[in-house]
Amino acid sequence: MIVTVTLNPAWDVTYRVPRLTRHASHRVGSVLERPGGKGLNVARVLHALGEPVLATGLMGGATGALVEGALEVPHAFVRIAGETRRTVTVVDSDATVFNERGPEIRPEEWAAFQEAFSARAAEAEVVVLSGSLPPGLPEDAYAVLTRLARAQSAKVLVDAAGAVLRAAAAAGPDVLKPNAAELAAAGLPLAAPGRGALVVSRGAGGLVAVTPEGRFEAVPSETVDGNPTGAGDAAAAALAVALRDRLPWPRALGEAAALAAAAVAAPAAGEFDPEVLRRHRMSPRVRRAPCPS
Amino acid sequence: MIVTVTLNPAWDVTYRVPRLTRHASHRVGSVLERPGGKGLNVARVLHALGEPVLATGLMGGATGALVEGALEVPHAFVRIAGETRRTVTVVDSDATVFNERGPEIRPEEWAAFQEAFSARAAEAEVVVLSGSLPPGLPEDAYAVLTRLARAQSAKVLVDAAGAVLRAAAAAGPDVLKPNAAELAAAGLPLAAPGRGALVVSRGAGGLVAVTPEGRFEAVPSETVDGNPTGAGDAAAAALAVALRDRLPWPRALGEAAALAAAAVAAPAAGEFDPEVLRRHRMSPRVRRAPCPS
Repeated sequence: MIVTVTLNPAWDVTYRVPRLTRHASHRVGSVLERPGGKGLNVARVLHALGEPVLATGLMGGATGALVEGALEVPHAFVRIAGETRRTVTVVDSDATVFNERGPEIRPEEWAAFQEAFSARAAEAEVVVLSGSLPPGLPEDAYAVLTRLARAQSAKVLVDAAGAVLRAAAAAGPDVLKPNAAELAAAGLPLAAPGRGALVVSRGAGGLVAVTPEGRFEAVPSETVDGNPTGAGDAAAAALAVALRDRLPWPRALGEAAALAAAAVAAPAAGEFDPEVLRRHRMSPRVRRAPCPS
Repeated sequence: MIVTVTLNPAWDVTYRVPRLTRHASHRVGSVLERPGGKGLNVARVLHALGEPVLATGLMGGATGALVEGALEVPHAFVRIAGETRRTVTVVDSDATVFNERGPEIRPEEWAAFQEAFSARAAEAEVVVLSGSLPPGLPEDAYAVLTRLARAQSAKVLVDAAGAVLRAAAAAGPDVLKPNAAELAAAGLPLAAPGRGALVVSRGAGGLVAVTPEGRFEAVPSETVDGNPTGAGDAAAAALAVALRDRLPWPRALGEAAALAAAAVAAPAAGEFDPEVLRRHRMSPRVRRAPCPS
């Protein structure tokens, strides 16, 4: 089983308006609502692929109840006293996004989560730690969880940014999967963390991986138009399966690139287009990457 | 008792951001949440004044539960299957507002509300019908409720806009209280509806009333800086008390103008500044208004 962790899930609300005008009043044409958060996107992709998956994390309040109620993936969240956050996206010709920070997590809630997480990790082959942390959690939260998972012999994939990414890298997860901008912003080198692998998503430029087996890159065989949000989460889902199945890295990277392309072709994060997935699987473009000069 | 009706209540969410930029991603600095809707504002003002009040209307879903949980005013809402709406206001140097339309009301829910409303109206001296209608309700909803309230010998104040205001005017409520822009947009004349009174709020220009006792205007004795949202609701609250107590119109209008000014001085809709109220009560500026040429 693959366990995904979402410590700062969200209720994603999308408003469609003819045109967003600053300091005006808008009548919202349509409202779209769904569970949000990178870990939940990974879980939804795995679930749609038919892979055994469990979504866990922290959830609270009426908004948390909305998220859990709408989540079709098997889940077991740890309850918190605070209120799960929302994100509001206003779409006219493009998206304007408002991200709430999330609830303040109490130390005893974080302790309770670590305990629950250890128990879940004991049943998992792979654990995926994705996305931002809510206020109150230590920057090294993913490093702590990486060590707990390893103690239960589970493999770990981390997709994070900033100081959280840096701290996680130091714990040496099996796969560290930031995007190129996050890697650069965290001041990290293009190098594998310990004995693990670094996989960097570069949007339309595909994926590059620094692994114990060497450096590889997966280049898209065709450009896919669509919604890039969630493509990195789809890649993480594919890499989690590859970790579980001990696939060789070129194969893992091909799968990740194909699933990312299929996610771009789908309307919403956490979904993918099976036809695009099939097409990209048929013509993987994975090659050894040149070493940096 | 005064009964306020809010058929399309809301959970008002206010985000503070340094600057709203179209097509950018924003990290929300602070989140403020509270029950919203004109009828609830009227009820909150009445409750703060110590007046017996009951808030009723339609409420549903997790968002409705948030609204009811946060409402300090005595209330009895009719449950609907749909989800109570939200409004999102993004504040930088000024406010950018996104109003959801509200849940679709089923015919049997509207029927159930009318029944519950009749029972409440029987215990009320005055009924206040304020704000927009959710999808699914007929345009003459306030006209229907006006007739039901009258059948129970309750007086009726209506604060609405557009076709809803026009239809309500035809039912001849005791007070019709639009603002000047709403009256003009509805194509209605500055004339009393039937045997009732028309009170028009004109923002900083005060109030004008066309009543069976003649035409009056209340002009603010001083300019109040602050938040004009909710000033009209405060005026409606004062007029409801005046209706109940059969105050003469000049007195009623003076009270309404004073409470509106006190609402402008308070930070949020549904609140008022008691010191400003006291000051404005001490120097009411109500005079007979000239007839239109």
